[in-house]
Order: sequence, then structure tokens, then C-alpha cells
Amino acid sequence: MNSRRSTPPAGRASAPAASPWRASRERLRDRELKREAVIRAAAREFNRKGYHNTSLDDIAARLEVTKPTVYYYVTNKEQLLFECFVAGVEPIRAAFRDARELPVPARERLKAVLRHYGEAVASEFGWCMVRAEDQDLSPAMSRHIKQLKSEIDHGIRRLIREGVQDGSIEPCDAKMTAFALAGALNWIAHWYREDQSMTGAQIAEAFVTIFEGGLRPRGSASAPGARARTRRVRGSPTR
Amino acid sequence: MNSRRSTPPAGRASAPAASPWRASRERLRDRELKREAVIRAAAREFNRKGYHNTSLDDIAARLEVTKPTVYYYVTNKEQLLFECFVAGVEPIRAAFRDARELPVPARERLKAVLRHYGEAVASEFGWCMVRAEDQDLSPAMSRHIKQLKSEIDHGIRRLIREGVQDGSIEPCDAKMTAFALAGALNWIAHWYREDQSMTGAQIAEAFVTIFEGGLRPRGSASAPGARARTRRVRGSPTR
Repeated sequence: MNSRRSTPPAGRASAPAASPWRASRERLRDRELKREAVIRAAAREFNRKGYHNTSLDDIAARLEVTKPTVYYYVTNKEQLLFECFVAGVEPIRAAFRDARELPVPARERLKAVLRHYGEAVASEFGWCMVRAEDQDLSPAMSRHIKQLKSEIDHGIRRLIREGVQDGSIEPCDAKMTAFALAGALNWIAHWYREDQSMTGAQIAEAFVTIFEGGLRPRGSASAPGARARTRRVRGSPTR
Repeated sequence: MNSRRSTPPAGRASAPAASPWRASRERLRDRELKREAVIRAAAREFNRKGYHNTSLDDIAARLEVTKPTVYYYVTNKEQLLFECFVAGVEPIRAAFRDARELPVPARERLKAVLRHYGEAVASEFGWCMVRAEDQDLSPAMSRHIKQLKSEIDHGIRRLIREGVQDGSIEPCDAKMTAFALAGALNWIAHWYREDQSMTGAQIAEAFVTIFEGGLRPRGSASAPGARARTRRVRGSPTR
């Protein structure tokens, strides 16, 4: 079980704390690791059995602790689902922040974000990311989740518009394009377990390649025939 | 209510049947129209309230008929969900059959199928198409749905492979590309009601344009700068 990895490192009890502050820091870190283990175990159970079919007892059993121990880290099951959602989207939000600093065209920044997005959806938090909103949550929780999703959606649209402006992205409808990209990535949560031959990062990279290049062959020296054919059937490339 | 359209045409009762066979044909047609109305009403209720929260009473009430009337057309709620699923995927299966006859490159045939796919997911049957499998159905029903989905998935992969062979599609991983395209289209069912400004056909067309062209600008006379930049960042286009 992965949750075992989150127990305190061996030898901790035998090393005397040098100062009460150090002991306090260690306790905080220990608590954080255990909290993460609770969230990760919950994400796996929700993914496996669905939110409504999973009880805090199930999650406690999975961690080999009692239910009050779980309550020490979260106030209720709804908050636990929310924490799973946040654990899933946080790497995407971080990718947006990191991308802002990159001195590259917007298409490359968008690709960096989409890679993190794909990896997150293929992670154990994927189910919670894409299904949390459907679980009859309280209006406040639902609003909070919608807000975080909307922030990500608008971040993607912004990068697309910036790419069209800096010439790195073909002119397109930013909203529809964002919906198509995010939809393809979100759907990974529905099928990923079926394909264990690729890691989440490999799936994300494959999708980014597809989004970037499109189906229509690129005119290149290696495929002059395809290029000629492409021209013929091009139609209206940008509506 | 759309279901009203499915009641017998006005004047039917007053026109005497010319022969018992004609009357019989009319009865069959009448039954078929009513059956379609039941399926359509069910799809709307499942979409609105979820499968488990919808009863046959709700559907009967929506149609202003009694529950036994609903049972006249379907044996139970599970079969009703299956019929909604079939009503959603049938136009896609028909599109595959029609595409086979088209004397155009495989990319054009694929696009024709994807347009029908997108329209179907944006229709009232979209929720049932993408969510039927999650509803704890009987193993036999679940298998049947999986089989129909797999047939569509493999049809898309086959058209992609044919396109790579005839030069109309950029060489790619057919399975991952099929998953990306279908995922983006399936996800339409999650958001479509939010955007009433475009029809299902318009959404499908917008998505097909995005899939076809990709994000990277096409080298063209109108954007020579973008073309030069594209070459530089191309990397490994097909992994």
C-alpha cells in the first residue's frame, strides 16, 4: 500500500529532538504526511466505488486506522472529496504560475500546462477532479469547485488567445478550443485504468502531440504527396 | 413538449383505412412514434435528474400517461436506459456505414463520422451515451453497451489508420488519437447546456476543425513568420 510510505521515517522515535521547535516542525510534517495519506486513500476509494458508496469507515479500514483518526484530518466526507479535488487541480494551478515565467511562445506554455493537466487526470485524483461536481455537494462546496474549474478554463483560454496573438497558435475560437482540449484530457479519467502500458505522463504527452499537430498532414519534404492531397481537401480551415 | 409531436397526426381517426393492411401499418407507425416519445422523455429525465433518481412514474408523468403505458413499450428502467443509449449511438453507426460509400480520403470520412458523433453527444441522448455504463447495470446490459462502444472506438481507429495509409492523416498513434477525439466529443455532454448560443451541429463542426488543424499554425503565405517559428519548436511530431 502506498499509504505506508507516509508513515514517519524509521528511526524517528530513537533520534532525540535537538530543540522543542525542531520537534514541533517534525510533528507538523508528520501530520501533513498523514493528512496526505488520508486524502490519497480517499481518492482511491472514491475512484473505485464512487463517492456515495464510500464511507469514512472504508477509508479508515484502508489506512488501518480508526474513523476518529480520519476525522482528525478532515471534518466530513464532503470536505475529503474537496481535498481530493484540490490535490488534483493544484499541480495544474502551479503549472500556470510556472508557465508565466517561461520565456517561450504561448503555445509552449500552454503545452506545459496541458501536460500537467493530463498527468493530474491520469493520477489517483482524476476521478475526483472530473466527477466531484456531480455528487450533490452543498451549494457552497459546489460553488468553490466551479470557481476553481472556471479559473483553469479561463487560464487555458487566455494562453490560447496569447498564442494566437504571438503567432504560435493558429487563429481559432479560444473557448471551443479550450473545451475540446480539456474535454479530451478530462476523459482520460474514464479509461486510463484500462491501459496500463503507458504512464500518465506518456498519455499526456501523446495527447499534447495530437492537439498540436492535428490530423491533417503537415506539408513536409518527407511527404510531398500528402501535402498535395491536403491542399485539395482543405476546405475552410478556420470556419 | 416535443413528445406532443409524436402523437398521431391530426385527422388520422377521421380517415377510414383503405385496407386492413394499411390500418395495420398505421398502427405500427403510431406505436413506433409513441415508443420514440417514451425514449426521448426518459433521456431528458435521466439527463436532468440522473438515472437512479428517475422513476418510471416521473417519465409517465412527463408524457401525461400512466406507468402501465410506459411498460407497454419497455420492460423496465434498465431497458429504457439502454434504448436511450442506442438512440444516441445509432446515428454514429449509420455515419460509419454511410462513410464507407464516400469516394473521399479517409480523413474526410472520419470527419463525417465525428460530426455525427458530436451532434449525438450534444443531443438529449448525450448523457445516456456517456453515462449509461456507470449506472450499475446488469452484467449482460453492461456487456452489450461496452460492445457497442468498442465497435465505435475501433471504427474510429480504423478510419485513422486508413487515413495514415492514404496520406490524408498525419502519422499518429491510432488508439491514442481515437481516445483524444472521442474524449473531447464525449465531454460535450458535460457542458453543452451551458452554451445555448451554438447548436450541436455547430459545436461538432468547431471541434472537427480543431482536431483537423491542430494548434500549431499551418505554414501559409499569410503567416510566414509563424511558419518559421513553428519549424523551430517542432520537436518530435509523432513521438
